[in-house]
Amino acid sequence: MAQKPSIPKGTRDFSPAEVVKRNYIFNTIKKVFRLYGFQPIETPAMENLSTLMGKYGEEGDKLLFKILNSGDFISKVPNELLDKKDSNKLTPKLSEKGLRYDLTVPFARFVVQYRNDIVFPFRRYQMQPVWRADRPQKGRYREFYQCDADVIGSNSLLNEAELIQIIDNVFTQLKINAIVKLNNRKILAGIAEIIGEHERLTDITVAIDKLEKIGIENVNRELEEKGVSKVAVENLQPILALQGSTGEKMVQLESILAASEIGMKGVEELKTLFNYLQPMGLNTGVELDLTLARGLNYYTGAIIEVKTTDMEMGSICGGGRYDDLTGIFGLPGVSGVGISFGAERIYDVLEQLNLFPQESPEITRVMFVNFGEKEEAYCLPVLTKLRSAGINSEIYPESAKMKKQMNYANKKQIQFVVLAGESEIAEQKFTLKNMQTGEQQLLGTEELINTISKS
Amino acid sequence: MAQKPSIPKGTRDFSPAEVVKRNYIFNTIKKVFRLYGFQPIETPAMENLSTLMGKYGEEGDKLLFKILNSGDFISKVPNELLDKKDSNKLTPKLSEKGLRYDLTVPFARFVVQYRNDIVFPFRRYQMQPVWRADRPQKGRYREFYQCDADVIGSNSLLNEAELIQIIDNVFTQLKINAIVKLNNRKILAGIAEIIGEHERLTDITVAIDKLEKIGIENVNRELEEKGVSKVAVENLQPILALQGSTGEKMVQLESILAASEIGMKGVEELKTLFNYLQPMGLNTGVELDLTLARGLNYYTGAIIEVKTTDMEMGSICGGGRYDDLTGIFGLPGVSGVGISFGAERIYDVLEQLNLFPQESPEITRVMFVNFGEKEEAYCLPVLTKLRSAGINSEIYPESAKMKKQMNYANKKQIQFVVLAGESEIAEQKFTLKNMQTGEQQLLGTEELINTISKS
Repeated sequence: MAQKPSIPKGTRDFSPAEVVKRNYIFNTIKKVFRLYGFQPIETPAMENLSTLMGKYGEEGDKLLFKILNSGDFISKVPNELLDKKDSNKLTPKLSEKGLRYDLTVPFARFVVQYRNDIVFPFRRYQMQPVWRADRPQKGRYREFYQCDADVIGSNSLLNEAELIQIIDNVFTQLKINAIVKLNNRKILAGIAEIIGEHERLTDITVAIDKLEKIGIENVNRELEEKGVSKVAVENLQPILALQGSTGEKMVQLESILAASEIGMKGVEELKTLFNYLQPMGLNTGVELDLTLARGLNYYTGAIIEVKTTDMEMGSICGGGRYDDLTGIFGLPGVSGVGISFGAERIYDVLEQLNLFPQESPEITRVMFVNFGEKEEAYCLPVLTKLRSAGINSEIYPESAKMKKQMNYANKKQIQFVVLAGESEIAEQKFTLKNMQTGEQQLLGTEELINTISKS
Repeated sequence: MAQKPSIPKGTRDFSPAEVVKRNYIFNTIKKVFRLYGFQPIETPAMENLSTLMGKYGEEGDKLLFKILNSGDFISKVPNELLDKKDSNKLTPKLSEKGLRYDLTVPFARFVVQYRNDIVFPFRRYQMQPVWRADRPQKGRYREFYQCDADVIGSNSLLNEAELIQIIDNVFTQLKINAIVKLNNRKILAGIAEIIGEHERLTDITVAIDKLEKIGIENVNRELEEKGVSKVAVENLQPILALQGSTGEKMVQLESILAASEIGMKGVEELKTLFNYLQPMGLNTGVELDLTLARGLNYYTGAIIEVKTTDMEMGSICGGGRYDDLTGIFGLPGVSGVGISFGAERIYDVLEQLNLFPQESPEITRVMFVNFGEKEEAYCLPVLTKLRSAGINSEIYPESAKMKKQMNYANKKQIQFVVLAGESEIAEQKFTLKNMQTGEQQLLGTEELINTISKS
């Protein structure tokens, strides 16, 4: 026998049951995106390496999957380069294309490429797989989906508010309890400015980020080690000690940041955002979290992160405002704000909490048992009628043993089995068996269709 | 300014309008697949090259997109191999993975890999992109979707019948007039046998295939050139001259093939299939076409091809029965039958015939004009209500010039615009403008929602 086939490490096959569950997540998110006026785009799996390289840092460049050039690729490589056997230098000679690493860079490329056709503000969503040559480990894959929505070409904070409303809508529908954590890059800049360490914004944020984990003493030590002055660390203390509700924290922040223009701008933005959110009546709590710093080098305004309160789990959605997404492709000064749902983690949450629905429009609901030629001919017109009524149905394609057919229905988790043997045919009826309850009913064609439609 | 960004040749970006149209096709096909009890699977974009190589012929191997190994890939290549600069020999040293070339080989791999978990007969559908390093040309892309449905592990001809019923369902829903052409590999084998040229089946079929194009004289000349004997060519004449309806042709075939066991088996299969189809009341015509030979080396029973009668266009769907799909992965003797829809060509047909629906659940239906802070606050709760009612809606995110906002709504083909300025607020009403008719109505909140819901 041939070698047992397998798939590349870090990739996955999805069985019907898994696809149905994944589609439940994707479809829920898509529907909400559309409710808010977002429209889908799709970009190719392969991008030119010139589009991808240098956009994700040196580490990212290494994690790009590169496509080997077709044809006689090696003849174009100079001998002296080959002799050096330097993989990094050879790569550009052997490969011109790579698999997309995220949806953000292809989106930026798309916006610049079609800027004359796009009507701004451009509300787009995109849900496609991305590929990363990461070391595979639990929960980290080399092929996974991203689910992004962005508004580009509008500075209004109403966009931030609506994205948070989308987050609320999605998690409410999925029945996941969540909390939205909010910060603003301008507030972080203001804090650094106020304590006189404008230049050390990143170090300060990295340290603050660890507050819960390592405690205030260790944070202070780390700051001093990084070169933050003693005075600055002292001045930082009241900020780290901020207590109370988001409203209370905002009041304190306003007085602390009074002397920083950028800091006050950040406070102003947060206030406007909370003013939008307040009348929206969200189910999901939204709170200020000064330790939130994700994508610091990238975001310029709001920073958003969502966690579930149902279990320990990394963030299940995140995003923020960026002011120069398209600058890398020669179109500077276009502001945008976006969010991205972590479908893989959301899957794990739903699975662990047993929140996937039992029913799905994608599942087969009815199977006709096949007793032989005559019985099959009796069933086929009714099968067609069920399908015309929009009910996913099938007939076992041959008159196999009853046990085999019932086993098939069971394993496929089919809800109803229809049996029609000699006695049913004589009466012009069908026996409908509910596979969950075991209940059986003898029904005419119309009753059969009605009973299944209504259940 | 930076270089204008672009995408690899043969690949495509899809704008929102295009994605919506493509999804209309994909969703129509998917829904019908599900109605018939087919369930989705998904496989990774990348497969091991050992899975892909040798499955598509020598030409296919060349057209596989191969992934360059990560890390220091060149250090593992022996110097003497590098010195030879032979791309074919180097490829296996530089690449272990490739992008899937079709959905059939990954499906065969899937069936073998999970054979203990799968309940047979396995009715699966799969709709994912595939990649081929073909020379790009009109209508041929390097990345395109395949839409496949297969039943594996059942010999029943009811499967063939249901697949044709699916074809009929799909094209009826898409409003494409189509004709299903049917043949059977066993009949072709029977013909070759009857004329004493059992070995030259392929040559004979290739020649017959050209009958309409080049005429009988040229077909005969080609056959003789290929080495088919004069007697055989003579014996072939009555078969090529078969006239009349499918029923009439079948009667004639039965007498012509009487002496060929395999030929008679093919006739028998076709008869059974037509007996299944007859009471199904299909909209689509189904006819016997002895010149149909697609995938000859692959199919073992039914051969199916679908053409539209609305215009000149290659086949828009095709398929057939194969008896040894999984043998290549060490699981011989599993019979299957499948069809594949050509989504790209179907797109072209719908586009040319203007058959894409105007309405789509994916399109934004309502836009609120933004007149400023007060008006925005007045609109937002109603916007939320519209969304709760499942109506895709948005508000222009800032109080830009009226012309700009209306232009946005127009370009996005939004059906309704809602205007609420000072006078509307005073009356607690909204002006609803139908962008197609220009008609305006002054409505309260509930009336507004009802009017939009019903239209």
